[in-house]
Amino acid sequence: MQVQIVEVGPRDGLQNEQKVLSAPEKIRLIEMLAEAGLQRVEASSFVNPKWIPQLADAGEVCRSLPHQSRVRYSALVPNLKGLERARECGLTEVALFMSASETHNLKNINKSIEETFPVLRETAREALALGMRVRGYVSTVFGCPYEGEVPLDNTRKVTNELISMGVYEVSIGDTIGVATPLQVHQVFAALVKDVTTERLAGHFHDTRGTGLANVAAALDEGIRIFDSSIGGLGGCPYAPGASGNISSEDLVYMLHGMGYETGVSLEKLVEAGAYVQQLLGRALPSKVLQAALAQSHRRQPESRAEGGKA
Amino acid sequence: MQVQIVEVGPRDGLQNEQKVLSAPEKIRLIEMLAEAGLQRVEASSFVNPKWIPQLADAGEVCRSLPHQSRVRYSALVPNLKGLERARECGLTEVALFMSASETHNLKNINKSIEETFPVLRETAREALALGMRVRGYVSTVFGCPYEGEVPLDNTRKVTNELISMGVYEVSIGDTIGVATPLQVHQVFAALVKDVTTERLAGHFHDTRGTGLANVAAALDEGIRIFDSSIGGLGGCPYAPGASGNISSEDLVYMLHGMGYETGVSLEKLVEAGAYVQQLLGRALPSKVLQAALAQSHRRQPESRAEGGKA
Repeated sequence: MQVQIVEVGPRDGLQNEQKVLSAPEKIRLIEMLAEAGLQRVEASSFVNPKWIPQLADAGEVCRSLPHQSRVRYSALVPNLKGLERARECGLTEVALFMSASETHNLKNINKSIEETFPVLRETAREALALGMRVRGYVSTVFGCPYEGEVPLDNTRKVTNELISMGVYEVSIGDTIGVATPLQVHQVFAALVKDVTTERLAGHFHDTRGTGLANVAAALDEGIRIFDSSIGGLGGCPYAPGASGNISSEDLVYMLHGMGYETGVSLEKLVEAGAYVQQLLGRALPSKVLQAALAQSHRRQPESRAEGGKA
Repeated sequence: MQVQIVEVGPRDGLQNEQKVLSAPEKIRLIEMLAEAGLQRVEASSFVNPKWIPQLADAGEVCRSLPHQSRVRYSALVPNLKGLERARECGLTEVALFMSASETHNLKNINKSIEETFPVLRETAREALALGMRVRGYVSTVFGCPYEGEVPLDNTRKVTNELISMGVYEVSIGDTIGVATPLQVHQVFAALVKDVTTERLAGHFHDTRGTGLANVAAALDEGIRIFDSSIGGLGGCPYAPGASGNISSEDLVYMLHGMGYETGVSLEKLVEAGAYVQQLLGRALPSKVLQAALAQSHRRQPESRAEGGKA
């Protein structure tokens, strides 16, 4: 069985890193991700660079994306202006975003949920008219840093609205990493009443350690598309120092162990993770990455009578 | 629904830490764990201190365990000699251990699996005759650092043998943290053919990020007892620098989010995690701990128009 992985490290990961990578470093990272077999990479974001200085070079990066016929690149766009910038770089796919939480949407986009719909609708219409693919994100589905619990009806409404705009897929996001498997079951069981599983993706953050458990719960609900970030790079804007996106390495390890095919080479993925870890100069959260780096240095374990390593 | 947590940080965690805590520090940690509401704590190990110098003070620690009528303390014992030391400290519960992997058992205990049975059987018999409770561990169930895959028949045989010795519960261990949820389903589905779920515990390591996903899979199979380590302290003896036991904080967070009752205060658990993190002087793997520490320092998140935190 196939699972699609959408690599969001160059966007959702890097936008939450303090250290800013150079455009050539980002391009090399994206190249390594493509070489590892990832077929969908979110390369950058065309939001106002004033708010995300880490991705101010979105144009430079997106104009130099490695040519790989298998790989689809996309970028986040907030509106027509962002779409125009993405199109100028030759991108053929963009992603729209909004929140299921009224307060988070207001703080993040400066508009109410209702006011956001027409902006995204005209952006989607224009992108589709240009022959581009359009993806949608719904953030703070599982909890909001301002409101706490977010009504499931909000998520259903925003998801259905995005689908009606012509997005091919909606990514259901646990922006602050609070979800547990029970809630994941509940949310996707509700969403699939309106939308087929093929058009839904799971976007989990591992801020409280439940990221892969939530993936497993979503798999149980028939979801076969997941967003992840190389090395688990990035973080949580509402808890600086905490973890962000689930790690691509850990996700691929688990999926392969469960018999799913991803088309990704875990070995090459670890090389990409090691590369970005070195660039950032900090130990990234990916457990598979750390285990692989540790094992590459290990000596053969010694015999220890009564070691008690139960 | 109730889930029992067996806190193994003072034993499985600390035995894998480079820095050795003093006995008073360990006792204070155990006290904080008991105050957090944990009802089962594995306090130390009576294996040969030559092999586990971190726990050479097992006697001192176990003689000074905080009096809490709700809390059951135990310690690892390899044989009659270890049992005698545990009894002298006034412990009323011990844990026996062996491997499902022939090679790991040989390297760890210096005996074949068949040679180990009589040693554990006489230890169990003596402990039961003294009125003590006896727990059993089966390690390397999901993979062995020497052999790779471990036959499920080995695990069934060792588990059933331990049960026949009179242990009240067998903890099924992913010693090197390689399991994925599919395998967890398969292993427990096989074991419950012989042993009721009430007598099986899941002992997962988070070395590759799948720890809580494996807990969720075991919950699906009816398992309601899990081992975990405060802060996720410890590590993997076969990949120095990699993660070990799942974190008690992360486990409790997920269980509570899924509607299970544990009797544990997550807030107090985080205090215990922060205490041991400070003692060890390194950031521990627990994500909930890190998120809580980060949030305790955070400022109110600022409004950011078009922030694009999808």
